[in-house]
Amino acid sequence: MNTTQNTQQREVILTGDRATGPLHLGHYVGSLQQRVALQTQHDQTILVADMQGLTDNAHNPSKVSSNILNVVADYLAVGIDPIQTTICLQSQVPALAELTMYYSNLVSIARLERNPTVKNEIQSKGFERSIPAGFLTYPISQAADITGFHATLVPVGDDQLPMLEQTNEIVRKINHLGGKTILKECRPLLSDAPRLPSTDGKNKMSKSMGNAINLGATEKEISAAVKSMYTDPNHLRIEDPGQVEGNIVFTYLDAFHADKAYVEELKSHYRRGGLGDGTTKKVLEECLQEMLRPIREKRTMFLDDKAQLIEILKQGSQRSREKTEQVLFDVKGVFGLNLF
Amino acid sequence: MNTTQNTQQREVILTGDRATGPLHLGHYVGSLQQRVALQTQHDQTILVADMQGLTDNAHNPSKVSSNILNVVADYLAVGIDPIQTTICLQSQVPALAELTMYYSNLVSIARLERNPTVKNEIQSKGFERSIPAGFLTYPISQAADITGFHATLVPVGDDQLPMLEQTNEIVRKINHLGGKTILKECRPLLSDAPRLPSTDGKNKMSKSMGNAINLGATEKEISAAVKSMYTDPNHLRIEDPGQVEGNIVFTYLDAFHADKAYVEELKSHYRRGGLGDGTTKKVLEECLQEMLRPIREKRTMFLDDKAQLIEILKQGSQRSREKTEQVLFDVKGVFGLNLF
Repeated sequence: MNTTQNTQQREVILTGDRATGPLHLGHYVGSLQQRVALQTQHDQTILVADMQGLTDNAHNPSKVSSNILNVVADYLAVGIDPIQTTICLQSQVPALAELTMYYSNLVSIARLERNPTVKNEIQSKGFERSIPAGFLTYPISQAADITGFHATLVPVGDDQLPMLEQTNEIVRKINHLGGKTILKECRPLLSDAPRLPSTDGKNKMSKSMGNAINLGATEKEISAAVKSMYTDPNHLRIEDPGQVEGNIVFTYLDAFHADKAYVEELKSHYRRGGLGDGTTKKVLEECLQEMLRPIREKRTMFLDDKAQLIEILKQGSQRSREKTEQVLFDVKGVFGLNLF
Repeated sequence: MNTTQNTQQREVILTGDRATGPLHLGHYVGSLQQRVALQTQHDQTILVADMQGLTDNAHNPSKVSSNILNVVADYLAVGIDPIQTTICLQSQVPALAELTMYYSNLVSIARLERNPTVKNEIQSKGFERSIPAGFLTYPISQAADITGFHATLVPVGDDQLPMLEQTNEIVRKINHLGGKTILKECRPLLSDAPRLPSTDGKNKMSKSMGNAINLGATEKEISAAVKSMYTDPNHLRIEDPGQVEGNIVFTYLDAFHADKAYVEELKSHYRRGGLGDGTTKKVLEECLQEMLRPIREKRTMFLDDKAQLIEILKQGSQRSREKTEQVLFDVKGVFGLNLF
C-alpha cells in the first residue's frame, strides 16, 4: 500500500444493479472490476435494485425475484467482499421509499419527461403515454438511493449523467428548504473501460438477445458464444487481410487477454492475412474459459448455500436501514415532520 | 342499541384529512359527525395526511406541519374517541410509502392524467405540466392508504369517486398477479349531508378565502362571519318578501339549528316579508355560538396538552404500522420479494 492511497479521501460510494438478469462480461468490465478495486479504499454500498427492476417488469415479477440471489452470487464470485462492501436489497430499506415520496413533491412531471436517459428508454421500450408512473419517476427513486447513503461518488456510464443532475437538483432544493446542508451533492465516477460490445456486434448486450456471456456461463455456452462472434464479414479466406476494428473477437481479446503484446502480434498477423477466425476465436475462448472457470465455480458454490447469500443481504440491508433512517429523519426535519 | 345495529357488518373504514389547515364547519357537517357515529360500530382509522398535504405544499411545509396537532385537537373536540378510532400520522407509517412504490408500477401516467378529480385540481391550481410528480401520483398514494388497512368502506364526497375506482383497479391488478385475493376492493360511503356552502355563497370553503367558520373560531370570529354572510341581495327592506333558496343564513340554519319547526316558521315569515336579515342572523349566531362554544373549549384544552396529542398520534401510528406491515408483506409476496 503506497502513501498516495493512504492519503486519498475516503468517499461514500453508491452503486448497484437492477436485479433483472444474471450479470455478464459487460458488467465485469464496466463496473464489477472497478468495485472490487474501490472497496478497499472507500465506503461502498451496492444496492440490489429489485424495486427499480419492477418499474418495467411489474407484470413479470419473477424476472426480478428469481435474479436477486444470482446477482449477489455474481458479486461474491468476482471478489466483492461483503465485509468491505455493504450489499443490500433495495426493498428491505423502507427509508428509500419514504425519501422518494418526499422528493416527488419537488420534481415536476415536465422535468422528468425532459430527462434524456428516461426519454431514450421510453422510446426504446415503446412506452409512450402508457409508461408506468414508477418508470417515469425512477430518477427520483435513484436520487433517494444516492442521497439516502450520503453518497458523494457514483460510478456511472456517461448515459447516466442526467440522473446525477436530477439528484443534485433535489439535493439543492432540500438544502435550500432546510436553510443548511442536509444532503450532499454527488459526483460521477466515469469508468475508463470502453463499453464492451455484444457478441453479435450490433445490439445492446442482454441475456434475452442471446448476445452476452454471463459470468456463470458454462464451458459450452462460452464456446458457442465465441464461435458465433461477429468478426470481419469480408475476411472470407484465411490468406486474405482482415479487419481488426469492429471485429468483436479482437475487442474481447483487448478487454480480457493478459498478454497485450501477444494480442498486438495477432492483430498484425490478421491484418496482413494468413490468420483465420478459427484461430483467433480459439485464443479468445481459451482466455475466457480460463478467466470464467474460477468465477463460475465460486458462483456455483455460493448459490449452493442460499442461506448464506440471504444472510449477507440481510446484514447489509440492516446496516443500510440504520444509515438511511438517519437521512430520512433529517429530510423529514426539513418538512417539520419529526413530532415523534 | 337495537338488533339491526348489532347484526350490522363490522366494516374497516379509512378516512382522513390533509393537514393543511384547521377543520371547519364544512368538515363538521360533511365528515366529522359521520365519523363520530361510525366509530362505535366499525373499525375506523383516521389518517392525518401530512405527506399528501405536502404534494402541493412542499415549498411551504409549515402549512402542513403547523396544522397536524390542530387537526387532532379538532377530532377530539368533536367527539372522536382515540380508543374507538385509530388516529394516525401518515408520515409515521412507512409501509404506505412502500406500497405506493409497488403500485406505481401498475398505473400509467396516462391513466393518472385521465383521473377527473386530479384533472380538476390541476386546472384549479394552474399546474399544467409543472405539476409535481407527487401531486399527479397522489391517487396511487391514496390507494396505498386504503388498501394498507384493508379498508372496505371509504367515506367520500362524490367528487372523490374516481379515487376509489383507481384504488379498485390496483386491487384487481394485485389480486390478478397474486392469483388470489390479496387486497380487498372498497366501497364508497357517501354522506347524506349536502355540501355546506361557504359563508360568501360563492367559492369553495377555505381558510385562506376567509369564507369558512373554523371549529376553533372565537366568539368574535363567529359573529363577524355570520354578519358578513350572503343572504338575498334583492331583500332590501325588511317588509319585502325574501328568498330562502341560496340564502346562506337559512342553509346554515337547516344544517345546524336543532328546532326544525322553528326554522320552517322563520322561512315562511322571511318569504312573506317582515323578517329582516339582522334577525335571522341573530338566530343563527346564537345557534352557532352555543354549538361551537364547548367544541372550542375542548379544543383549547386539548391543544394545551400537546404531549397528550402527540401520544395519541404515536399510539395510533404504532397500531397502524402493525396493520400495514402485514399488508405490505402480502403485496411483496406477490412480487416474490419476501426473501427475509
